[in-house]
Amino acid sequence: MPEVVIYAIGGRSQDQKRGLCKDVTEAVMKNYGVPADAVVVTLVETPKTDKAKGGVLFSEMAPR
Amino acid sequence: MPEVVIYAIGGRSQDQKRGLCKDVTEAVMKNYGVPADAVVVTLVETPKTDKAKGGVLFSEMAPR
Amino acid sequence: MPEVVIYAIGGRSQDQKRGLCKDVTEAVMKNYGVPADAVVVTLVETPKTDKAKGGVLFSEMAPR
Amino acid sequence: MPEVVIYAIGGRSQDQKRGLCKDVTEAVMKNYGVPADAVVVTLVETPKTDKAKGGVLFSEMAPR
Amino acid sequence: MPEVVIYAIGGRSQDQKRGLCKDVTEAVMKNYGVPADAVVVTLVETPKTDKAKGGVLFSEMAPR
Amino acid sequence: MPEVVIYAIGGRSQDQKRGLCKDVTEAVMKNYGVPADAVVVTLVETPKTDKAKGGVLFSEMAPR
Repeated sequence: MPEVVIYAIGGRSQDQKRGLCKDVTEAVMKNYGVPADAVVVTLVETPKTDKAKGGVLFSEMAPR
Repeated sequence: MPEVVIYAIGGRSQDQKRGLCKDVTEAVMKNYGVPADAVVVTLVETPKTDKAKGGVLFSEMAPR
Repeated sequence: MPEVVIYAIGGRSQDQKRGLCKDVTEAVMKNYGVPADAVVVTLVETPKTDKAKGGVLFSEMAPR
Repeated sequence: MPEVVIYAIGGRSQDQKRGLCKDVTEAVMKNYGVPADAVVVTLVETPKTDKAKGGVLFSEMAPR
Repeated sequence: MPEVVIYAIGGRSQDQKRGLCKDVTEAVMKNYGVPADAVVVTLVETPKTDKAKGGVLFSEMAPR
Repeated sequence: MPEVVIYAIGGRSQDQKRGLCKDVTEAVMKNYGVPADAVVVTLVETPKTDKAKGGVLFSEMAPR
């Protein structure tokens, strides 16, 4: 407690995931005054075929 | 904003996913008066072994 | 099954909520081929003080 | 209704999943007075690389 | 870990909530072999105006 | 994209919420290389009567 769930497109590296979980945990500790062990972070990764913005799947967006 | 998360059994086709994301996005735009780009839809697919109704896994239900 | 969860700022009218739930349910039925009774929609409303985009709370954004 | 979502590290056996879904469904029926068919349970499994406690990924924790 | 989120209509008594959290926690401990302290249960209650089944808000369903 | 949902006990101050949303957004930007506007953070607050750890409601835990 608190529990953090992050919904993102898959394909991040292990370094990115480690860094994100560490930094988000520290953000919760600093602002909410809870110990590290109280914070659980779950990354819910989805393929680009399973996520859309503006009604368009990420797998079908034109490259920018 | 708003963010839509849809929990379903996996195995849908790309056409089904594209159609669902497009139609759900339009439903949010029409009823909540937000622009398309504000709407993110995430499909959280789970295998039939990881979801149950009435206490029975979908992978172990008798075919109807 | 499927279950739809929609995270949005609170304050919508009953008409907006009714319309959104109805249209989202029809979008799921049409694209995934499931009966109406299989679709549950939950609106998770949060006050503007509890949601942020770009790191800024909606309650503290400059009006557009 | 109600819908139950359980976020856990992946790798459980089919027996464990079956048992958890059955017991959680019965817990909801008993305490909330709803029929079995009203209860949907979704297991959202994540690999150990995608989940952290105390800011440390489960994949990088020292074995206990 | 695991984290359980239960989406339901609001209005349950404190006894119902206490019983549900206790029984769900025991179901996770028994089936997944984790200690009690590892299990967090969150009840996300929504008013009947914010939840629909079959495209109809619970607040507008005919009484059974 | 990404969308962050944080489940916590309610009662935090506006300063705490502002700080948490800002710091979590920066953590996502830094580690995942996305612009600020792509990050949405939702705080799902629950009363102490609606959340349990170790099978005990937070509202009924002995003070530490």
